[in-house]
Amino acid sequence: MDSIGRKRWVIAEGYIPDGSMAGADETLISHEAACILNTGDEDAEVEITIFFTDREPAGPYRLSVEARRTRHLRFNDLDHPERVPRGTSYASVIESDRPIVVQHTRLDSRAAEISLMTTMAFAAD
Amino acid sequence: MDSIGRKRWVIAEGYIPDGSMAGADETLISHEAACILNTGDEDAEVEITIFFTDREPAGPYRLSVEARRTRHLRFNDLDHPERVPRGTSYASVIESDRPIVVQHTRLDSRAAEISLMTTMAFAAD
Amino acid sequence: MDSIGRKRWVIAEGYIPDGSMAGADETLISHEAACILNTGDEDAEVEITIFFTDREPAGPYRLSVEARRTRHLRFNDLDHPERVPRGTSYASVIESDRPIVVQHTRLDSRAAEISLMTTMAFAAD
Amino acid sequence: MDSIGRKRWVIAEGYIPDGSMAGADETLISHEAACILNTGDEDAEVEITIFFTDREPAGPYRLSVEARRTRHLRFNDLDHPERVPRGTSYASVIESDRPIVVQHTRLDSRAAEISLMTTMAFAAD
Repeated sequence: MDSIGRKRWVIAEGYIPDGSMAGADETLISHEAACILNTGDEDAEVEITIFFTDREPAGPYRLSVEARRTRHLRFNDLDHPERVPRGTSYASVIESDRPIVVQHTRLDSRAAEISLMTTMAFAAD
Repeated sequence: MDSIGRKRWVIAEGYIPDGSMAGADETLISHEAACILNTGDEDAEVEITIFFTDREPAGPYRLSVEARRTRHLRFNDLDHPERVPRGTSYASVIESDRPIVVQHTRLDSRAAEISLMTTMAFAAD
Repeated sequence: MDSIGRKRWVIAEGYIPDGSMAGADETLISHEAACILNTGDEDAEVEITIFFTDREPAGPYRLSVEARRTRHLRFNDLDHPERVPRGTSYASVIESDRPIVVQHTRLDSRAAEISLMTTMAFAAD
Repeated sequence: MDSIGRKRWVIAEGYIPDGSMAGADETLISHEAACILNTGDEDAEVEITIFFTDREPAGPYRLSVEARRTRHLRFNDLDHPERVPRGTSYASVIESDRPIVVQHTRLDSRAAEISLMTTMAFAAD
């Protein structure tokens, strides 16, 4: 299959809930994800920049998405150059050297039950 | 980074739930947000117009989104020229003098648990 | 403000949950809505066609969205030419004689809590 | 009505929750769906390819969507050429020989309550 998608995507909403339900296993911990698909035959090199409300942007966060693979990246796991703060509003720009598709999902388990939301990211090129 | 996005966005769904779970802190109060990202190097001046089902539109509501910042605007906080009513259907048009990206999110905590939904706004230019 | 949007929109997901939480008031009854915004200075005449999995389409359902107004149409309320069945998968095409913006939302209160989801409809022209 | 939509769609997020609430009937079992609408007068032949994080893609999964019909396909039901694993991240590309519209929905009932999310798929042609 050929490469599908765009090279620049934006997620304007960002927020990692600070806390999770008691006894949550890893799949149920509050998290926010950028689900990235690379349908092409070459690895995609991706850079993420995180924007905040009251300070300069952080990043770039660098990662690869291998050829013909999807990567469901949790913002919770971004540690370099710095950790993404919990309970803080942010936004992100995701840039790739090859076409990819990006979808945004949050699972919030601060209360006793989980709540989900998702949207395609905004294709900006 | 250069300016990313569009100058006019639409959110056709709008509704601030009238009520919240007992003991909700500020993050868990029922609210509706327009998450706005300005990646550019100059501040964006934004005007929001609110449409209703049975009266003329309200606004413009004016705000700034600083350069290289995101602003997660709660419709709950819009007070001038008038407060956005609770428990009332509305819609909004968000216009900016510079490219921005807008995402719509609602957190509803009228019941004992929270429920979330989100979507990219409609880019109308 | 001028007319914003498109004249043809599609919602591929459709399902009115059959049942609601005990004691739900009207705002909490399980429902599915097409939120329509007409920013223009003339009324929009809208026709909705409902598609099913195993029978010919129903409609057109006709309604108006007045100038400078939003209408949050519940599919639950569509009665003519026929009622939209509960607990049944459907899809819808929304056509207007003037540009509008359409957003799809479902509130499901079959369980003790509510769950929400939303997305912009697909702009098909 | 003429054919509406596109011939290639992408859903970057994919995950069938592994488990459901006690006593869930079929409508409440955790599932993920691609809701497909074919408004045209000829059947659409659809092929789905599933991408994973750590192995080569699976598929194509073949199905038809009849003329003037919608099909709310559960990924849970895809069995040939192989079952879609539960509790595993995936992504999907949906290709059709005629224009269709695709919307992505998940119902998660692992906890005592259900949670919903939806988005239009990304139109990639």
